[in-house]
Amino acid sequence: MTQPDNASNDTVGSVHELAVLSRIFPLLPSASAALLGPGDDAAVLAAPDGRFVVTTDMMVHGPDFRFAWSTGHDLGWKAAATNLADVAAMGARPTGLVVAIAATRDTPVSLLEDIASGLRDACAELAPGCGVVGGDMSVSDTFTLAITAFGDLEGRAPVVRSGARVGDVVALCGDAGVAATGLRLLFDRGVDEHGTPDRSLADRLRAEHPDTVGAQLAPRPPISAGVAAALGGATAMLDVSDGLALDARRIAAASGINLDLHSELLGSDPEMALRGGEDHALLATFPANAPVAAGFRVIGAVTEGSGVTLDGEPVEGVLGWDPYAGWNGQAG
Amino acid sequence: MTQPDNASNDTVGSVHELAVLSRIFPLLPSASAALLGPGDDAAVLAAPDGRFVVTTDMMVHGPDFRFAWSTGHDLGWKAAATNLADVAAMGARPTGLVVAIAATRDTPVSLLEDIASGLRDACAELAPGCGVVGGDMSVSDTFTLAITAFGDLEGRAPVVRSGARVGDVVALCGDAGVAATGLRLLFDRGVDEHGTPDRSLADRLRAEHPDTVGAQLAPRPPISAGVAAALGGATAMLDVSDGLALDARRIAAASGINLDLHSELLGSDPEMALRGGEDHALLATFPANAPVAAGFRVIGAVTEGSGVTLDGEPVEGVLGWDPYAGWNGQAG
Repeated sequence: MTQPDNASNDTVGSVHELAVLSRIFPLLPSASAALLGPGDDAAVLAAPDGRFVVTTDMMVHGPDFRFAWSTGHDLGWKAAATNLADVAAMGARPTGLVVAIAATRDTPVSLLEDIASGLRDACAELAPGCGVVGGDMSVSDTFTLAITAFGDLEGRAPVVRSGARVGDVVALCGDAGVAATGLRLLFDRGVDEHGTPDRSLADRLRAEHPDTVGAQLAPRPPISAGVAAALGGATAMLDVSDGLALDARRIAAASGINLDLHSELLGSDPEMALRGGEDHALLATFPANAPVAAGFRVIGAVTEGSGVTLDGEPVEGVLGWDPYAGWNGQAG
Repeated sequence: MTQPDNASNDTVGSVHELAVLSRIFPLLPSASAALLGPGDDAAVLAAPDGRFVVTTDMMVHGPDFRFAWSTGHDLGWKAAATNLADVAAMGARPTGLVVAIAATRDTPVSLLEDIASGLRDACAELAPGCGVVGGDMSVSDTFTLAITAFGDLEGRAPVVRSGARVGDVVALCGDAGVAATGLRLLFDRGVDEHGTPDRSLADRLRAEHPDTVGAQLAPRPPISAGVAAALGGATAMLDVSDGLALDARRIAAASGINLDLHSELLGSDPEMALRGGEDHALLATFPANAPVAAGFRVIGAVTEGSGVTLDGEPVEGVLGWDPYAGWNGQAG
């Protein structure tokens, strides 16, 4: 039975859906573009441009996150940040999110509150004015969170992957390889002797390596740089989710050109920068005859050919993360 | 290993994500409002009205569907239909869907193809011009499908729940209690001696009772009636997903009135019509001084008070479906 004086013990399976929602709703960020918010069959969002940008992403316990490593706040933050990055990569300003959660019955309601707080804080810091306009809640054996994010192009053309031209410079805004360094630390030292993710080990690791582990668990992609890049004349752009080499190849394939990256511009660990994913930096190409947008740094050039080269040599080997690699969704 | 000549044995876990997507993409319906479709960080959809309607819904294997009862085509159809109904209930014309799927590793790729075909056929029949503009694919221990749907208001005000006025008539377009009759049949006779959903029993049941079981597994909500109701002056409207009594109470609460339903207008089984969910009919209120919109039939009147009455008497008992009721997500 629910104890009104002990709400911290409530779980999704022990209290009524309406009671759960009444605790979560006040925590969610409101969207300045919301003409009609949650509570009806659908929300109504302003699209002053006459178009809107939309992207969706599902995070599944096991392959995408583990509660032994991520707090609820981390999960809400990361879910917002990664979707906002996809909106930003089109050169759009994020306006709203809808959030569907399938929680296990033993999920504490307080964890859902933490997720809502993470969504709120990520929107406030990364995309002020963006908020949650609707959602859905279910129960499941596997904790799953699905976010759909919207953005406004403010009259500009979307910055797509296919616009890079020979002679452009290649530029990056944000980190490359930092989140992957954090993930490697977690897999190496955030697990117990059976390889199971362990909360106390992860907490200690995060205290010792806040930058890298924090970048993995709660990334801070440069959302406002997306609009800046569009205004600055970016010819192509994407969000680096699977690693620089793999995502650069996507621009190369869509544009029919080669991206030559320069190893001396990739920081102290060019290999990790090339192959490590989940930083959600923005990779863009700009005309060479003008400065790149504020916040971007040049890391290479667009050349004739097809694919990705490092100092003129093809990048070999496994480029990025395969979502079908083995995993155990129950562990951690 | 993948056998090119035996694609019917491929599973999500045995072939590369790109190979899966290359088989699904051609089956998905295209959206006439899509200015930029799948393949970039985000899609771009037209919103000529300067606003858009958005709703999201997650379907989880176990509480929301079971593959022993539903084909992939059924699941895709129902996921589209239920989300389109929420858009229609605002008085909007559906323009697009984004679809996120988390599949178990043993899911046949052919099942995903069937889901795509179900999405396509539902859009074509229920909302021509609406299509899939983006998506995401993951692996999970629990098969989960999340849909977000969009609609255009075409210059009209959204039809919300709070606009019903004393003196309006209450009208319904679509079935009430038919899908629940089908679900009752499935739970009574579509399970084996251990209560586990059984495919061959369900198939036989559906052949014997195509209307009711079909309404449960692949509902056909009256999507175009949503725009008709808005044009016809509906003062309030919603999609009946949890049963007439529970959803009527939502209009009553939002509008601060009472909805009095008339039992002789509820068909041969008023109790089932009142309490059975998942038909996704449209329940609306209209001014009494004009005919209700085409397709709607009067089932009651808006009166002073708060709540829902049947022939003037309060409706007692359990009104609708509780998503937190016990279930076994692994069975069937």
